[in-house]
Amino acid sequence: MRFHTRKWVKPEDLNPNSTLFGGRLLAWIDEEIALYAIIQLETPRIVTKHMSEINFRSSARQGDIVEIGIDVLKFGTTSLTLTCEVRNMMTRETIITIDHITMVGVDEFGKPKPHGKTKIEYISDRLNRSS
Amino acid sequence: MRFHTRKWVKPEDLNPNSTLFGGRLLAWIDEEIALYAIIQLETPRIVTKHMSEINFRSSARQGDIVEIGIDVLKFGTTSLTLTCEVRNMMTRETIITIDHITMVGVDEFGKPKPHGKTKIEYISDRLNRSS
Amino acid sequence: MRFHTRKWVKPEDLNPNSTLFGGRLLAWIDEEIALYAIIQLETPRIVTKHMSEINFRSSARQGDIVEIGIDVLKFGTTSLTLTCEVRNMMTRETIITIDHITMVGVDEFGKPKPHGKTKIEYISDRLNRSS
Amino acid sequence: MRFHTRKWVKPEDLNPNSTLFGGRLLAWIDEEIALYAIIQLETPRIVTKHMSEINFRSSARQGDIVEIGIDVLKFGTTSLTLTCEVRNMMTRETIITIDHITMVGVDEFGKPKPHGKTKIEYISDRLNRSS
Amino acid sequence: MRFHTRKWVKPEDLNPNSTLFGGRLLAWIDEEIALYAIIQLETPRIVTKHMSEINFRSSARQGDIVEIGIDVLKFGTTSLTLTCEVRNMMTRETIITIDHITMVGVDEFGKPKPHGKTKIEYISDRLNRSS
Amino acid sequence: MRFHTRKWVKPEDLNPNSTLFGGRLLAWIDEEIALYAIIQLETPRIVTKHMSEINFRSSARQGDIVEIGIDVLKFGTTSLTLTCEVRNMMTRETIITIDHITMVGVDEFGKPKPHGKTKIEYISDRLNRSS
Repeated sequence: MRFHTRKWVKPEDLNPNSTLFGGRLLAWIDEEIALYAIIQLETPRIVTKHMSEINFRSSARQGDIVEIGIDVLKFGTTSLTLTCEVRNMMTRETIITIDHITMVGVDEFGKPKPHGKTKIEYISDRLNRSS
Repeated sequence: MRFHTRKWVKPEDLNPNSTLFGGRLLAWIDEEIALYAIIQLETPRIVTKHMSEINFRSSARQGDIVEIGIDVLKFGTTSLTLTCEVRNMMTRETIITIDHITMVGVDEFGKPKPHGKTKIEYISDRLNRSS
Repeated sequence: MRFHTRKWVKPEDLNPNSTLFGGRLLAWIDEEIALYAIIQLETPRIVTKHMSEINFRSSARQGDIVEIGIDVLKFGTTSLTLTCEVRNMMTRETIITIDHITMVGVDEFGKPKPHGKTKIEYISDRLNRSS
Repeated sequence: MRFHTRKWVKPEDLNPNSTLFGGRLLAWIDEEIALYAIIQLETPRIVTKHMSEINFRSSARQGDIVEIGIDVLKFGTTSLTLTCEVRNMMTRETIITIDHITMVGVDEFGKPKPHGKTKIEYISDRLNRSS
Repeated sequence: MRFHTRKWVKPEDLNPNSTLFGGRLLAWIDEEIALYAIIQLETPRIVTKHMSEINFRSSARQGDIVEIGIDVLKFGTTSLTLTCEVRNMMTRETIITIDHITMVGVDEFGKPKPHGKTKIEYISDRLNRSS
Repeated sequence: MRFHTRKWVKPEDLNPNSTLFGGRLLAWIDEEIALYAIIQLETPRIVTKHMSEINFRSSARQGDIVEIGIDVLKFGTTSLTLTCEVRNMMTRETIITIDHITMVGVDEFGKPKPHGKTKIEYISDRLNRSS
């Protein structure tokens, strides 16, 4: 699993009990899986269709650094199935895991559209070092 | 199911495809279930432990009004299990459903703590009309 | 008066004195009256024209739950006059009252436009249970 | 009337009709009157007690620049009464006026406390050029 | 140097060490210089091209009031060079200084475009008192 | 240079000209360098002291994905000097470069404090794989 995006837990991210607000965490994850799918499927038109159950194992506190890891499980014809883990870099604990997240590439009318991809392409190869 | 909180979908709530950003929606739900549990369990110390799978059935657009419904499924010793549905008041479509959400009441050290509740108390009875 | 939307007072909602920031509260009210008018007048084109004086009776603290109540006072030809009360569900105190708020339905050029409504329609009847 | 703070109307400040969200505007005003009172009364402990009626005369669009003007009407024993006007620097129109806003200086328990001020002190004199 | 916009440091503006988050401060500055350039060049099409080095001299805490000062250094053919200082009105300390900021007026394709301005025009003269 | 954090440019991140708001970009960078320094210096007490000049080379649009790269230039006794580049993953263009950013580790009174570090430690080694 590759961990990219990191977040610094600031006062604006806390719930009234002074731990990381779960809703903020879910919003961070949703953004990360969206951009991961956009990069892999090479289309900005993607929608989240399904998330498997979510276990909240631990939390984070103000000043902690959280990192979000994503891995590909399967390329379907129009879909991409991912798995996600969020870790607290300070306590080394897993905060949340989501086993399966299904993203679907769509056309301009929102209908599922074959994406033609069958394996992970390393962004570093495809995007960053090509220039 | 009782629908309370309503949200007006504003530009700041959109993803780059100009539909409601899923992460924003999950954050709205998480706030709503938290405050629902706080009111029912009569304690501000609650944590989300588990959500069952999430189906994203439809979306919403700028200017739509979204309402969030919550119902109680079960009172455990330290837990409260809820179910959630989010609807688009403009299109009358269901946006998202989450069958089971488990909230747990905790003590000041974060350990599960019996809450002593066994049934829904109508807030209107308990809180608003008692004064 | 019907109370719908509820808010959980989070750190991002506080002023530097650690009570609910009044500006945040006014923003919450403005959103609630806008969506209330949109639903009643069945048009997304509404503007706030006037609010009567605002009395700040009490405040709220981090972790408190606030609920916003709206009632209709009068249907005019192009306008809708509402009344608003915000309560703190924890302390049972009234936080703010605004006796009269005038919303106006407008056409695409921003000119007042008759809305043809003369009484409250229960959203639950009109919108939610029709499907 | 002195106009200090200016705001640039960005997409995050719009309502779904693509004009300046009234709630955002009220939040901007509330912050401006709070800091104005803090500077004049030389105490961070101030609360808003009352606003007279609010007339929404015109709006603003994305990219417009809005400026907020405040003037002192009266120094009471524990209170300070201000007047406020918000203008659109692009269209030169008045957006909103609030004739009377009453702020009160309080002690650490939230009780009104005499502030000992009787006239405007120019911040530039008192604060900025004294060092 | 003229100081216009003031900000009240709220919990949402803090970093996890409870001082003003530097990123928030830079965002405030960027907005202020953008609207300053828009007013002086009388065009909404402006881009930031360059900032000279930034010295962080002191910080601010929750409840402090910060004011942002801008001055014009030079009018180029397509550019405007500004200088900026941010002060803490509570401690009277300078928080940040940026010696040179270059803004450029552009056409609808993003190409630099002569703005025809050669000196500061007082907004109060040009905009506010003309009506 | 290692690129970690990625951002998806959403409507709330745009300036009124519908390109990425520069202030938002600077806030993203400031968070990234802060958490990078916290991880390398193994202390949450760090402050930004200086940034060298900033060149804005290109921008980004709604839906673009931006990634932020950081590298270490030098470990001082109390300081850490970094370099930063932000890239647009869609257009493959460099958006911004900052050659030198100096962070300082401080004690509880804000005084510079030796950090005892002399070289990069890979977080994956130190933090993630130790459990």
